[in-house]
Amino acid sequence: MMRISRRGAVDPFIVMEVMEAARAREAAGADVVHMEVGQPGAAAPARAIEAARAAMARGPLGYTVALGLPELRERIARRYAERHGVVVAPERIAVTAGASAGFLLAALALFDAGDRVALAEPGYPAYRNMARALDLIPVGVPTGPQTRFQPDAHLLADAGRAGRLAGVIAASPSNPAGTMLDRAAMAALAVECRRIGATLVSDEIYHGLEHGARAVSALEVDPDAVVINSFSKYFCMAGWRVGWIVAPPEAIAAVERLSQNLFICAPHVSQVAALAAMDAEDTLEAEVEVYRANRALLLEELPKAGFRSFAPCDGAFYLYADVGDLTDDSVAFCRRMLQEAGVAATPGVDFDPPRGRSFVRFSFAGPTARMREAARRLRDWRG
Amino acid sequence: MMRISRRGAVDPFIVMEVMEAARAREAAGADVVHMEVGQPGAAAPARAIEAARAAMARGPLGYTVALGLPELRERIARRYAERHGVVVAPERIAVTAGASAGFLLAALALFDAGDRVALAEPGYPAYRNMARALDLIPVGVPTGPQTRFQPDAHLLADAGRAGRLAGVIAASPSNPAGTMLDRAAMAALAVECRRIGATLVSDEIYHGLEHGARAVSALEVDPDAVVINSFSKYFCMAGWRVGWIVAPPEAIAAVERLSQNLFICAPHVSQVAALAAMDAEDTLEAEVEVYRANRALLLEELPKAGFRSFAPCDGAFYLYADVGDLTDDSVAFCRRMLQEAGVAATPGVDFDPPRGRSFVRFSFAGPTARMREAARRLRDWRG
Repeated sequence: MMRISRRGAVDPFIVMEVMEAARAREAAGADVVHMEVGQPGAAAPARAIEAARAAMARGPLGYTVALGLPELRERIARRYAERHGVVVAPERIAVTAGASAGFLLAALALFDAGDRVALAEPGYPAYRNMARALDLIPVGVPTGPQTRFQPDAHLLADAGRAGRLAGVIAASPSNPAGTMLDRAAMAALAVECRRIGATLVSDEIYHGLEHGARAVSALEVDPDAVVINSFSKYFCMAGWRVGWIVAPPEAIAAVERLSQNLFICAPHVSQVAALAAMDAEDTLEAEVEVYRANRALLLEELPKAGFRSFAPCDGAFYLYADVGDLTDDSVAFCRRMLQEAGVAATPGVDFDPPRGRSFVRFSFAGPTARMREAARRLRDWRG
Repeated sequence: MMRISRRGAVDPFIVMEVMEAARAREAAGADVVHMEVGQPGAAAPARAIEAARAAMARGPLGYTVALGLPELRERIARRYAERHGVVVAPERIAVTAGASAGFLLAALALFDAGDRVALAEPGYPAYRNMARALDLIPVGVPTGPQTRFQPDAHLLADAGRAGRLAGVIAASPSNPAGTMLDRAAMAALAVECRRIGATLVSDEIYHGLEHGARAVSALEVDPDAVVINSFSKYFCMAGWRVGWIVAPPEAIAAVERLSQNLFICAPHVSQVAALAAMDAEDTLEAEVEVYRANRALLLEELPKAGFRSFAPCDGAFYLYADVGDLTDDSVAFCRRMLQEAGVAATPGVDFDPPRGRSFVRFSFAGPTARMREAARRLRDWRG
């Protein structure tokens, strides 16, 4: 038996079991509505695909420099001026193989083994697992409706009681809660991070998917914040594996060296496609309209199926439902929902190990007709 | 000033400086022969590009499962039967975002912080740097012509004197030396690794680029070896970022969990293209013939320019030249070679910090006409 490392023993995602069970049901001929997926149902914009085709025809797609194609870094910089009204120098931007690589590189560049890093619960489980794999100590910050499921100074004070926090990871819009930090809350968080000497890492991968107020970038309130973003969600390029980091120059210098050694570069063809996708606002905004329609439909229909309490969905394509009145075992509940209603959703335990047994995440990234079908099935199931 | 981690302070590659200097000279109008690059000059095979185009046209390229497309894992397994005469179950294969991600995932799955890992010197510098970034202790194994620049039991005994080795990384063909372990040497290394309780990790990314004997896979001698491979070199898909790991099931289970959390998946479009590339042997073998012609030409012509001593080039597209009779500062020597002769090559210090000051790596991955031009320029320069 081969020796496996302690840090290799990270938790698997429960959602993977749901996906496998859904696949098995479909293989057996059943129809399943997929509300467990965390990615857009739409393809990359046509102009992104056209740019990829042209690049493949033009010549070899060799390695790019480690920080990514210069024209893509410049285009991303321009986006901050246009959308957020802040100047971000292209030299502060590193193109990465998705937000996954972005977080991995940022975590290695900023934190050493044994450092304590605060993470909101509920939150994206890979952050907690990645922190452990890199020998960091993830410190869960239990959030709730009082703070829109976001960390604040008070919660960070609790989290820091057992030891100094080297970093704070915040996600706005959040996965799974869909909630956002408004400008005042983001500023207060940035101020508190500076006060306690923690680096604020702002996960902004659901930016652009907003259902009311515009999402605030940490860079609007603190030019030295570290931001992680991605082409996977708004730009509909999940499988292309391209994203970016914004960070101060000394951090980008470390990210560059680490990236040369750990990644060489983000996929070249994906970088070319991503650049073109940034000029496809019309297509992409049409997709956001689909999410908004889905959200409105589900907020109307799901209560009729007994799902009455949701985190306020400011952005992203998730409804995080408190199902504490229906179950105290969301894993078994989701298994039954799949078997009996043909609707796949993710139990909250992936996102919040201590409290997720009474939460379920519904993704509404699919087509509106399928969301309507899901609502109908759930009404029948619970009716 | 932002706090940067200790492990973020990895060494930069000297070759990056060479590449930047070469770029600057070209921007100023000079013609440079590129013998510093570590990637094929040719594009991915036409059928790989055709497969990518078709996949992009077909629909959304979302995330794949973390271990990669099942059909690609099966096709890779078949390759081991066909080329190496060994049965490898597809379940033992993980598709990764290049060999970089492969090594990162294998290192995290197999080794814990503080573990000692033996690496040949000269060797691929990213392995040493990545080990440091993951809080492993890289232990240099100084190799030379006596062992074809490869580790053996005797050298490992020396390397293990200061502490138990948890792992041994071997590369055959080697970068930069181009030398291979024959079957007997590979078997002896595998036996010794088992004896000392170290996991053998075999870097086989230059397999297929062989100039005499066929490269031996560690899997031919030890079914439980951990193998890293890539589509970047033989398959001419460097910028596509796709490769693979072969490992025992318990290691693959750890790699799967880590990959879900750290990568999600390798780029989808690249996986599709890689699958098709595996059926493009004719195109790819024609490219290997170019390397063979380049190698023969340079082994004939470089001695006329005063480069007389090379590591025996069994494979890959590198000549590792001992220039100890010409300089004791390979960095300055390469700088002068670029400025005065218009030929870019990599000083040995990237690959072998203690002894690389008297070595230079010439890559012959470019077109034969350019290699001929390089030989002419070097003769004039040194004449």
